[in-house]
Amino acid sequence: MPRLDQIPPELRIDTELARRILVTMVREEVTKVGFSRVVFGLSGGIDSALVAAIAAEALGRENVKAVLMPYKASSPESLADAHLVADTFGLERAVVDITPQVDAYFEKPETPVSKDERIQKLRRGNKMARERMTILYDLSMLESALVLGTSNKTELLLGYGTLFGDMASAVNPIGDLYKSQVWQLATALEVPERVVEKPPTADLWTGQSDESEIGYSYAEIDRTFYYLVDQRWSPERVIAKGCGRELVEYVSRLLRQSQYKRRLPVVAKLGRRTIDRDFRYPRDWGY
Amino acid sequence: MPRLDQIPPELRIDTELARRILVTMVREEVTKVGFSRVVFGLSGGIDSALVAAIAAEALGRENVKAVLMPYKASSPESLADAHLVADTFGLERAVVDITPQVDAYFEKPETPVSKDERIQKLRRGNKMARERMTILYDLSMLESALVLGTSNKTELLLGYGTLFGDMASAVNPIGDLYKSQVWQLATALEVPERVVEKPPTADLWTGQSDESEIGYSYAEIDRTFYYLVDQRWSPERVIAKGCGRELVEYVSRLLRQSQYKRRLPVVAKLGRRTIDRDFRYPRDWGY
Repeated sequence: MPRLDQIPPELRIDTELARRILVTMVREEVTKVGFSRVVFGLSGGIDSALVAAIAAEALGRENVKAVLMPYKASSPESLADAHLVADTFGLERAVVDITPQVDAYFEKPETPVSKDERIQKLRRGNKMARERMTILYDLSMLESALVLGTSNKTELLLGYGTLFGDMASAVNPIGDLYKSQVWQLATALEVPERVVEKPPTADLWTGQSDESEIGYSYAEIDRTFYYLVDQRWSPERVIAKGCGRELVEYVSRLLRQSQYKRRLPVVAKLGRRTIDRDFRYPRDWGY
Repeated sequence: MPRLDQIPPELRIDTELARRILVTMVREEVTKVGFSRVVFGLSGGIDSALVAAIAAEALGRENVKAVLMPYKASSPESLADAHLVADTFGLERAVVDITPQVDAYFEKPETPVSKDERIQKLRRGNKMARERMTILYDLSMLESALVLGTSNKTELLLGYGTLFGDMASAVNPIGDLYKSQVWQLATALEVPERVVEKPPTADLWTGQSDESEIGYSYAEIDRTFYYLVDQRWSPERVIAKGCGRELVEYVSRLLRQSQYKRRLPVVAKLGRRTIDRDFRYPRDWGY
């Protein structure tokens, strides 16, 4: 499998161990807060396909609902791949077209328009990601199902995701797996080969490709993050390891500039105990 | 002013000091990340009116955009009060009706309907709150303006707000002020008396009232939180102080059960450094 050949040796994982950890984690995080079901967005890409595999094993396929939320500009192949994944793992699914809600906003006379085509594309992409979040949380309430996140560690560290959109969830089983590690684990968990092998895309329009948009391959980026983040090496040392100065500087800059997306809102401190400052119980404090 | 008479003595603040702290905080948090402008949702209620006053003083009224986002079921008085507040502080405003986007979702044939009228109301309220978030973040990007939060400490601790909706922001100037303290500071900052005095409401439908919905007054709840949270007293000791057993138990339960709304998504740990676990730089790390 071409994808597997691209995984940097430093990033290879014990897939059987990772599978056991993640399946147990999902089961425990869901059941300890009194839930038995989960809901998540299934895009047809590899990240949400891996989440599908983990969730089905953790909770039983009957407790997992995959939500397919195409936009009119989404690629039909993505939707077909999402159905293929849901079929593979035997998941119940809901299909909710987000076009009317998203277009209703951009077609309003009071909605401002930017002359910059790139900005307009980004705005539409963010609105789509946030609309999908609102649907997952609506179904979460209706069906007493926790929302699983589907962002991988590479995206989260690059900030290549929408805050309060695809980055929002209750529990994210794959947020500590780099994209290359997602390839490896997804293969081990028998995600359909077509989904593993296709070029990663945010699917905001047909033909979009993450790697050509970012300008580096995920394998290169992941290896750089591994040394910078997990090993805490200095940028100079990572460059000496052969990661390339431009890549290291680019990745370091994005890592820092996207930090706000990985933290809670800043609350001005006035009282004796302030939320997220000195009032910091775990999420499952109430259970 | 009747509202001022209701503030529990324990919660009274030095409004001049609070004003200086909050104005300085907003100015510093906005400018240190390279921004000069802010955007926020102005509802016609007291919380967002106080944020309007603080933001205008911190950044100059020309750098503050108030966004009014009525729904068809919102009270017309709320919209009128929002305009009054914007006029009072001389703010530029945008009015964006959220009805078409919200209704487009609930009118879809594939959107499930609950037979429980209370659930339907909650779903609509959450969808409205999240739609408003998406608009604020869209304008944030378009105008290079940070999103200010408008949730007070009482709401945040009760969980009386929508996760990834009104609870989402970049910087929240009033998140460490209890509702009673908001009354006091808003009065000192010359928020129109009509806005200070009217009964607090989430305004999901005309005539809704927070306090009758919750079943306790904000003054009672705030005093209970003050002893439980800020003073770290045990529930028994707070009851002995005269807060009422039912109230203390009710508030303690909500405090614990809503903790998940005040924390980031849980990421399954696999690697050496995991987001929000051992990878925890401040939001402004990149600046």
